[in-house]
Amino acid sequence: MRDYRFTLDMKVRDYELDAQGVVNNAVYQNYLEHCRHEFLLSQGIDFNRLTSEKVFLVVVRVEIDYQAPLRGGDVFWIGLNLERISPLRFVFIQDIYRQRDGRLVLSARTTGTAVNDRGRPCLPPELEPLLAAAAKS
Amino acid sequence: MRDYRFTLDMKVRDYELDAQGVVNNAVYQNYLEHCRHEFLLSQGIDFNRLTSEKVFLVVVRVEIDYQAPLRGGDVFWIGLNLERISPLRFVFIQDIYRQRDGRLVLSARTTGTAVNDRGRPCLPPELEPLLAAAAKS
Amino acid sequence: MRDYRFTLDMKVRDYELDAQGVVNNAVYQNYLEHCRHEFLLSQGIDFNRLTSEKVFLVVVRVEIDYQAPLRGGDVFWIGLNLERISPLRFVFIQDIYRQRDGRLVLSARTTGTAVNDRGRPCLPPELEPLLAAAAKS
Amino acid sequence: MRDYRFTLDMKVRDYELDAQGVVNNAVYQNYLEHCRHEFLLSQGIDFNRLTSEKVFLVVVRVEIDYQAPLRGGDVFWIGLNLERISPLRFVFIQDIYRQRDGRLVLSARTTGTAVNDRGRPCLPPELEPLLAAAAKS
Repeated sequence: MRDYRFTLDMKVRDYELDAQGVVNNAVYQNYLEHCRHEFLLSQGIDFNRLTSEKVFLVVVRVEIDYQAPLRGGDVFWIGLNLERISPLRFVFIQDIYRQRDGRLVLSARTTGTAVNDRGRPCLPPELEPLLAAAAKS
Repeated sequence: MRDYRFTLDMKVRDYELDAQGVVNNAVYQNYLEHCRHEFLLSQGIDFNRLTSEKVFLVVVRVEIDYQAPLRGGDVFWIGLNLERISPLRFVFIQDIYRQRDGRLVLSARTTGTAVNDRGRPCLPPELEPLLAAAAKS
Repeated sequence: MRDYRFTLDMKVRDYELDAQGVVNNAVYQNYLEHCRHEFLLSQGIDFNRLTSEKVFLVVVRVEIDYQAPLRGGDVFWIGLNLERISPLRFVFIQDIYRQRDGRLVLSARTTGTAVNDRGRPCLPPELEPLLAAAAKS
Repeated sequence: MRDYRFTLDMKVRDYELDAQGVVNNAVYQNYLEHCRHEFLLSQGIDFNRLTSEKVFLVVVRVEIDYQAPLRGGDVFWIGLNLERISPLRFVFIQDIYRQRDGRLVLSARTTGTAVNDRGRPCLPPELEPLLAAAAKS
């Protein structure tokens, strides 16, 4: 198992299951987003405050490899790392593990950037130290 | 613009927007799934009937490149192509375009397979002709 | 069957099903909201434009009687009527019917009002003619 | 504030917000359902196991009075009580409070029953002691 900069414990809610009795594929993006926002908040970066200031953190690409399903009642945790891949772009590397057997549920890479309300690149200053520390070495 | 084997017209519903006033990233996976299932149905393959027969069509990988957002009231369409990449795996190639300006909203590649209730590969016979026609040439 | 002022045709999407294989209870509120917003739009009232002008149409009460479930693939339609119950409050009366057998799926009463960004009552002028016509006789 | 038989702490996730910047009305039904299922689980009643045994706990009516909105980052808790209103029907009485000011967010009454896969009433035996204790006195 890898080292993670941030982890978050969560639990499946039954309304997240689909007719196959497993968490629907799209719901994992909800989990991953929630984890990213909690991580940012832990670093003093409030997604909703930025939005109200017309600084929009946006996702430009997502890749998810689904390995095993989550089912009703499953407890799981998400591990997160951050990597800067260009002056304006960063990648959240996230893995989900289920608790009952430690199995990897999925691995995801989410590329983000920040834009203003005219769609122009606009990295908020408070993101700089975070990204400096995440520079690909 | 590419040729597509199947297309579906849709419209954004307001509950799909998030606090940024755009369709939330995860919701696009809902759109893409709905389009895949409608395509399969048009080919005589009923996702829910398969599920009730313990044949599970599952997604093993998704890649989405987000290009432009959808907003409240936006009408859009999805184009779909299918490619077989191995005896047991196939890729749905899907693009979303918004109607008001024809702009590409996103491009997605979703890799799927089929398993039974023990998680073993299990391609339903009715998928064979579809995949034969989709063999990568 | 009652007369309705507005009707909307819809179709269940598979991601809206839960592990019981039926549309999850909460999803019907999505359907009902979408129908209300389409009705308002048909009357020249754009929910999202109002929101951007800091006029918030809000729900203060909902009552839903669930009569029969919707399943995967079901086509259905929603009938809507509007009633003004006080100077500032109005009720959307909505029924959902499934197409395959005409059966009533649910009946709902949703009470709404409009507030500004300080939470004060604020009926937008364009709502007045609509509500005048909907006065309880 | 009332006494509750069961309480659950939760936190708003940003994808649950809509374009008004508040939790969408339908999402509260997700919260309420999750709380009911956690309560049942605390009493040894597993919703998903019942579903797999073809015993379906279903909602026949919901009433929600919305009092104040939840916003991004809000922490809240749900209080739950249970009342049996007939041999086959029971009501979950639930209130949501936000933590930052203790304000009541909403009050809800959800009437449920249990049916088998032919839609016939079918109270699972393990529900009996729970409902006996919840008899309206």
